[in-house]
Amino acid sequence: MAISPLCPARQAAWRVRMRRKKLVKKTPKIAGSAPGTLVHVGERKAERIRVQILDYTSEHLEERALSGEEIAECCSYKETPTVSWINVDGIHEIGQIEALANGFGLHPLVQEDILDTEHRPKFENYDDYIFLVLKMLQFNGERGEISTEQVSLILGPGYVISFQERQGDVFDAVRERLRLGKGRIRRMGADYLAYALIDSIVDSYFAILEKIGDEIEILEEELVLDPGRDTMTRIHHFKREMILLRRSIWPLREVVSSLQREESPLVTEGVGLYLRDIYDHTIQVIDTVETFRDIISGMLDLYLSSVSNRMNEVMKVLTIIATIFIPLTFFAGIYGMNFEYMPELHWKYSYPLLWLLMIASAAGMLLFFRRKKWL
Amino acid sequence: MAISPLCPARQAAWRVRMRRKKLVKKTPKIAGSAPGTLVHVGERKAERIRVQILDYTSEHLEERALSGEEIAECCSYKETPTVSWINVDGIHEIGQIEALANGFGLHPLVQEDILDTEHRPKFENYDDYIFLVLKMLQFNGERGEISTEQVSLILGPGYVISFQERQGDVFDAVRERLRLGKGRIRRMGADYLAYALIDSIVDSYFAILEKIGDEIEILEEELVLDPGRDTMTRIHHFKREMILLRRSIWPLREVVSSLQREESPLVTEGVGLYLRDIYDHTIQVIDTVETFRDIISGMLDLYLSSVSNRMNEVMKVLTIIATIFIPLTFFAGIYGMNFEYMPELHWKYSYPLLWLLMIASAAGMLLFFRRKKWL
Amino acid sequence: MAISPLCPARQAAWRVRMRRKKLVKKTPKIAGSAPGTLVHVGERKAERIRVQILDYTSEHLEERALSGEEIAECCSYKETPTVSWINVDGIHEIGQIEALANGFGLHPLVQEDILDTEHRPKFENYDDYIFLVLKMLQFNGERGEISTEQVSLILGPGYVISFQERQGDVFDAVRERLRLGKGRIRRMGADYLAYALIDSIVDSYFAILEKIGDEIEILEEELVLDPGRDTMTRIHHFKREMILLRRSIWPLREVVSSLQREESPLVTEGVGLYLRDIYDHTIQVIDTVETFRDIISGMLDLYLSSVSNRMNEVMKVLTIIATIFIPLTFFAGIYGMNFEYMPELHWKYSYPLLWLLMIASAAGMLLFFRRKKWL
Amino acid sequence: MAISPLCPARQAAWRVRMRRKKLVKKTPKIAGSAPGTLVHVGERKAERIRVQILDYTSEHLEERALSGEEIAECCSYKETPTVSWINVDGIHEIGQIEALANGFGLHPLVQEDILDTEHRPKFENYDDYIFLVLKMLQFNGERGEISTEQVSLILGPGYVISFQERQGDVFDAVRERLRLGKGRIRRMGADYLAYALIDSIVDSYFAILEKIGDEIEILEEELVLDPGRDTMTRIHHFKREMILLRRSIWPLREVVSSLQREESPLVTEGVGLYLRDIYDHTIQVIDTVETFRDIISGMLDLYLSSVSNRMNEVMKVLTIIATIFIPLTFFAGIYGMNFEYMPELHWKYSYPLLWLLMIASAAGMLLFFRRKKWL
Amino acid sequence: MAISPLCPARQAAWRVRMRRKKLVKKTPKIAGSAPGTLVHVGERKAERIRVQILDYTSEHLEERALSGEEIAECCSYKETPTVSWINVDGIHEIGQIEALANGFGLHPLVQEDILDTEHRPKFENYDDYIFLVLKMLQFNGERGEISTEQVSLILGPGYVISFQERQGDVFDAVRERLRLGKGRIRRMGADYLAYALIDSIVDSYFAILEKIGDEIEILEEELVLDPGRDTMTRIHHFKREMILLRRSIWPLREVVSSLQREESPLVTEGVGLYLRDIYDHTIQVIDTVETFRDIISGMLDLYLSSVSNRMNEVMKVLTIIATIFIPLTFFAGIYGMNFEYMPELHWKYSYPLLWLLMIASAAGMLLFFRRKKWL
Repeated sequence: MAISPLCPARQAAWRVRMRRKKLVKKTPKIAGSAPGTLVHVGERKAERIRVQILDYTSEHLEERALSGEEIAECCSYKETPTVSWINVDGIHEIGQIEALANGFGLHPLVQEDILDTEHRPKFENYDDYIFLVLKMLQFNGERGEISTEQVSLILGPGYVISFQERQGDVFDAVRERLRLGKGRIRRMGADYLAYALIDSIVDSYFAILEKIGDEIEILEEELVLDPGRDTMTRIHHFKREMILLRRSIWPLREVVSSLQREESPLVTEGVGLYLRDIYDHTIQVIDTVETFRDIISGMLDLYLSSVSNRMNEVMKVLTIIATIFIPLTFFAGIYGMNFEYMPELHWKYSYPLLWLLMIASAAGMLLFFRRKKWL
Repeated sequence: MAISPLCPARQAAWRVRMRRKKLVKKTPKIAGSAPGTLVHVGERKAERIRVQILDYTSEHLEERALSGEEIAECCSYKETPTVSWINVDGIHEIGQIEALANGFGLHPLVQEDILDTEHRPKFENYDDYIFLVLKMLQFNGERGEISTEQVSLILGPGYVISFQERQGDVFDAVRERLRLGKGRIRRMGADYLAYALIDSIVDSYFAILEKIGDEIEILEEELVLDPGRDTMTRIHHFKREMILLRRSIWPLREVVSSLQREESPLVTEGVGLYLRDIYDHTIQVIDTVETFRDIISGMLDLYLSSVSNRMNEVMKVLTIIATIFIPLTFFAGIYGMNFEYMPELHWKYSYPLLWLLMIASAAGMLLFFRRKKWL
Repeated sequence: MAISPLCPARQAAWRVRMRRKKLVKKTPKIAGSAPGTLVHVGERKAERIRVQILDYTSEHLEERALSGEEIAECCSYKETPTVSWINVDGIHEIGQIEALANGFGLHPLVQEDILDTEHRPKFENYDDYIFLVLKMLQFNGERGEISTEQVSLILGPGYVISFQERQGDVFDAVRERLRLGKGRIRRMGADYLAYALIDSIVDSYFAILEKIGDEIEILEEELVLDPGRDTMTRIHHFKREMILLRRSIWPLREVVSSLQREESPLVTEGVGLYLRDIYDHTIQVIDTVETFRDIISGMLDLYLSSVSNRMNEVMKVLTIIATIFIPLTFFAGIYGMNFEYMPELHWKYSYPLLWLLMIASAAGMLLFFRRKKWL
Repeated sequence: MAISPLCPARQAAWRVRMRRKKLVKKTPKIAGSAPGTLVHVGERKAERIRVQILDYTSEHLEERALSGEEIAECCSYKETPTVSWINVDGIHEIGQIEALANGFGLHPLVQEDILDTEHRPKFENYDDYIFLVLKMLQFNGERGEISTEQVSLILGPGYVISFQERQGDVFDAVRERLRLGKGRIRRMGADYLAYALIDSIVDSYFAILEKIGDEIEILEEELVLDPGRDTMTRIHHFKREMILLRRSIWPLREVVSSLQREESPLVTEGVGLYLRDIYDHTIQVIDTVETFRDIISGMLDLYLSSVSNRMNEVMKVLTIIATIFIPLTFFAGIYGMNFEYMPELHWKYSYPLLWLLMIASAAGMLLFFRRKKWL
Repeated sequence: MAISPLCPARQAAWRVRMRRKKLVKKTPKIAGSAPGTLVHVGERKAERIRVQILDYTSEHLEERALSGEEIAECCSYKETPTVSWINVDGIHEIGQIEALANGFGLHPLVQEDILDTEHRPKFENYDDYIFLVLKMLQFNGERGEISTEQVSLILGPGYVISFQERQGDVFDAVRERLRLGKGRIRRMGADYLAYALIDSIVDSYFAILEKIGDEIEILEEELVLDPGRDTMTRIHHFKREMILLRRSIWPLREVVSSLQREESPLVTEGVGLYLRDIYDHTIQVIDTVETFRDIISGMLDLYLSSVSNRMNEVMKVLTIIATIFIPLTFFAGIYGMNFEYMPELHWKYSYPLLWLLMIASAAGMLLFFRRKKWL
């Protein structure tokens, strides 16, 4: 009978998992230090910084890969009439990031925010450029965990700079479309490129929600068919993931809506329709997250009622057995007494009669329980 | 005694039901693919695409049925001075839908949304035409499930195009009114036709809410009169359906309200009053759904308290029996001891005296329980 | 011991009550039928339609009663310079209502709404007249139920038409004031009359809230002093009534506020102050309903904790009895064994010594329980 | 063992308390009676009406006391260039109140509201004067109850009239400042006087919140250290008081904010800063009430978990005792059987061996319980 | 077995802790006293008042320390063209504070607010200067408590005055930057200095949230691995701290947003960007607090379900033992009876047969329990 709260192996697993997912990450910044002081907040997720440049017009496409040390070369793309997408993987080398940012004239506060991976999604218009913070999500089905990666976008005239925490992203399809010159992407400006990147991120949320939806359904099935000790911990775990997920996704609504409403020359009218589409998708994502929260909270009630029902059944079994046998044992006890003067002891048929009485009493009890629908 | 969580037959039924109703449908679209890439999201619900055209003025009415292959012929109705209603059943043949949509000059994003059956109800004004997404609901009483079908409406100058996932809808009464020329429908424009279609959908919600209301009342009765193990699962099921229903209906409010407020030349002033009426109905539908949610959440509390009450009763039976017989058994045990020197054993009347004592003790206990109202 | 969920008499009562109060009423209207198609939705509450006309200026008052068949005669009051109040009791004879409505030029949608008794309170300005839907409430103390009756008001230039579902209303005091010419009512126009009617309805809510408040207090007393099996069902019943009551009263706020803000020539400035007063009362009514909801939801917690407390007590009694007697019975059992070599059996004082031991052990247990405050 | 729901003395106390605090007060007004019909709603709290007049400029101060019969004399202060504060204690003599109100030209609806002590706090601007309804609170620590008294203020040009339900108020410090001519109060106008009175009322809330805060902390301590049967009833009582308190205080926010924003010549600009200060205090009061509500609702959870924990402990004691002794009793029973052929009965050491076995089994059980941390 | 609600040492600790943290602090102010009457509300946290002056331009920096008695000397810094930061530690010496405040022409209400340490964070624009109230937080990990200290800021033309309750603050890094002339702080005006101070405070919140986050994770781990009696009390304690923390932080959002939007000549445009940055941080802090609240509330459910699960297990052990041995004891009792005519007693193999029967019955029970997954 495994009644210890959780077996040691699970305990260890839990501990490891918790260690990995701090609610608030350690921030090395000292309160009161000058704003714009560059400090990298968060885990170091990449070995080295890598930069990829895609420079294109509708006619030509140039693709370059730079190492972190060569990052300053990007700045030459600032003033070109082409559209340039500068993608930076890894943000832990402060000096290199600073070189690039200064080259493009980014405000110190923007630089600070790019390095702080704990930011909420946000939109800021610095006239010369627009600064966006977004979250890229990944769902690890095995551990049932969602991990987030911060993506910062700078949309300037004729260029988009994207900063990611590590390599690997959801932008491959965009790259492919750029290379193949398929669709309207090559014919349009930097704002459309930025839209395409945001769209990729929001689209990737649907895939994650689908996976989570599947997990929730499996959990729901387990809950109805065979709720175990673990079920509650897993419900709690999902609830917690939803809280953290919601925190990443909610502000997105405002970000996209600001981007859409802002009257910036950087966002042309033709892209407005596409932004409205992203906005719709964002609402749909938020809607689904809220639905999941509601369903999970309903599962909690279901679990608690199921625990109560089980208790009820345990108690019924005990009560039925005890109620039948305790009176019988009493009667057996009576005739086990050693009084000298107990006439029944000497009657010939008292033993079988007692058996009859006992069987009748037990049958009566059973009938009583059946009438109460306990059986 | 059926104490297994759920009998196997029910388990299977549950599994099948759950399989059928994914929270989030599989989407074949790849994150990052070009916006406006046409992909059909959702189940394929119809064998073939069928198109029905109703073209009318107040004097004449023409009715045509086309197969999916002939869909391009619809485009000739775009420029006619008559009002044309083009109803498309089935949206899985992307090529055919695209042909129609391009013929009417629909934006790629609109085409994408028509094919994606997972959309929230929405309103979009594309100047030349208005795009609406709505949900048609059906309630399957046997399984207690609500199924949704997406209806997309395009309201252009002199035409309305409606896309449905499968055949069979709630528009038959509208068709009848068109054919008979009854009421004002034939005398009015495409905006009134669109209104009539939306009104049919909203009206059909009332019938569904009525059925759900009946089911809730049956469940409530069951809950008060004879709550079983299943009741909680059913309450949870209804709660879940309400969450999903709400998700389909809430956005409708905004859709109708946008339609009403939007100053588009496509919506004439005369139709405004009718839209206000739909708005009222929408509010009433939402109101009812919220009321149902409140009532269901109250049922949960009632169920939990009923489970606790039953436990209380089981415990009382056990306690009464045990409290009466355990002391008696002790006394019987005492005089079953084999000590050599036990004077009571040899007294003549000790046996009947012990019986008296025992009966008195049992009676005392019963009185005590009665005073506490346990009996 | 009455452990069946609810005695049959109560069961029957519950069933009858539930039948009477459908959450959503059957609507005979077919989805998709033409808007403005007149269908009476709801119970038929009156035998025949009766019409009462009060036509007055500050100098004269004419009072007439018409049967439903003579209803068309009302239309002559439309153009008179006097103020006319046409009160219609019963709305099930569609033809008669239609005749009246057409005589006064009411929009088909208004006519539809008058007949649909399931409407939420609403305000609509049709330039020529203002259309209001209100709910008249009645509280049946015996059954603890609130029944609603819909009142539709048409405020036109110089006339007010009121439609009620049945005879009997809260307007008698208004009639009396009109007849006696007391106060300012006869000196003022149709807008003041409409105000007086709305005021009567809102005032009647206070009386109902007072009665419900009394019932809630009785229930609360019962809950604290002697909670029974029924209490929970009654709390649930009240919660449900509150949900439905709220649904009738909430929209009123918007109705009165619209009436107040609307710049219609039908509402003169002098009446504005009075409408503000009604608005205040409406807020107060809503406030009280919300307070009742909060209190009822607190009662639920109290009930659940009281059930848990009772369970605790039952368990304590069982535990005390079992814990005292089970060890004693064990000792008695020991010396009831038939081993040949049991030295204690032959000692002279072992029997009284055992008694001493037993009494000491029981006393120890009792002390232990007292220290834990179980006794 | 006191298991009756509540001892009779407490029951009586509860009943008396509940009688005293009707949720909704009996209103003698008949629904539909003319608006402005003067009816006193609420308890009669004072024997006779008393009027106090403080008439002042920065140079002189006149103080007069009038009985209810002489109330009409106040009207002479309406037109004086001095600032006059007319304070009326007791509002049950309708005729006297009416005389005063008519003398100052108050609207009939204002007169009605002054007499209806069940009003929510409100602000109304009647151009010539401003009408305010406020609530004065008193906390009775012994009974843990908050009682409210309605204060109506009329702020006119050069005069303030205050109506209270009974004698005794929180304005003594204002009177003192007026008499001593301390601070700026004598140099400023009627609007500053009104401000000073409102400020006194809002300040008095802090003292009450402080007392309630103390009571909540005592309750919280009791809950953690020694929760009894009463605790839950008291938590419920506090929750209920908070609901009612909130109802008195919430509307105040709007009242003060209206007063501040209203562009009335009666409120000079210099007083605006002071009103902003009151507004801040009001927000702080509301904030504290909300915090109390949150804390009380947390106490409920704590109580329920504490009840469950106690049940757990009761069950553990029972289980430990029963699990140890029931098997032992079984073994004793075995060797109490009277079979002819039971070899063990005749072995020499079987009795001590059985004891050894029993002790080992009991020790094993104890070890098992210790490993599960039940001991 | 420690079943007493809480051990005495913990009880005492709890009492002391509660004493220290009054929900509402004692306020010596008498309701109705003149506004602007200076009274120090709150604990006296410092021995003596100390003043530190930092007066600087981009070229020079002067640093002075004054005692409370010399406070009037600060006033000479009001009119200088340099930027002066006057930091006052300790606010209990009313006379000294008043001297300073009057020297700078602060409004009496501002003076009152500086002394009242129970204020919510607030923003007030007095044209000549801006008045801000903020809360500095400290987290005591040992006691799991958050203590607050009020900081009032006056931002005037060319000067910032800060009032703190005691010595020790989060401004050391700002002082350092001023002394070293690092960054832009020395080149900018008083508004930037005010920004730097607010930024230091908001930044310090992150460190506190990080610590609280750690504590919550430890608690969560404890809850999953080994929930004890204390766990619930600690969850409640955290919930309470969150309620109070939230109350300190929520209003900050409005304060920063007002500061940002206010069009005051005191706040130059260049500082606007920095204020937007603080605003973002504030939103992030609030967001985290809300997330903590959600997680804590989820922990409560987890705890309750864990208590129920444990109860279930206790009951299962009892039921298994009782259900196996009670029937066996009954059989032993049967053959312990002393009837003369009991044939089984004389059969040779009845004893071993009975053992077989008993073992079979026990095995059957065990199988039954295994099938139900109780074992």
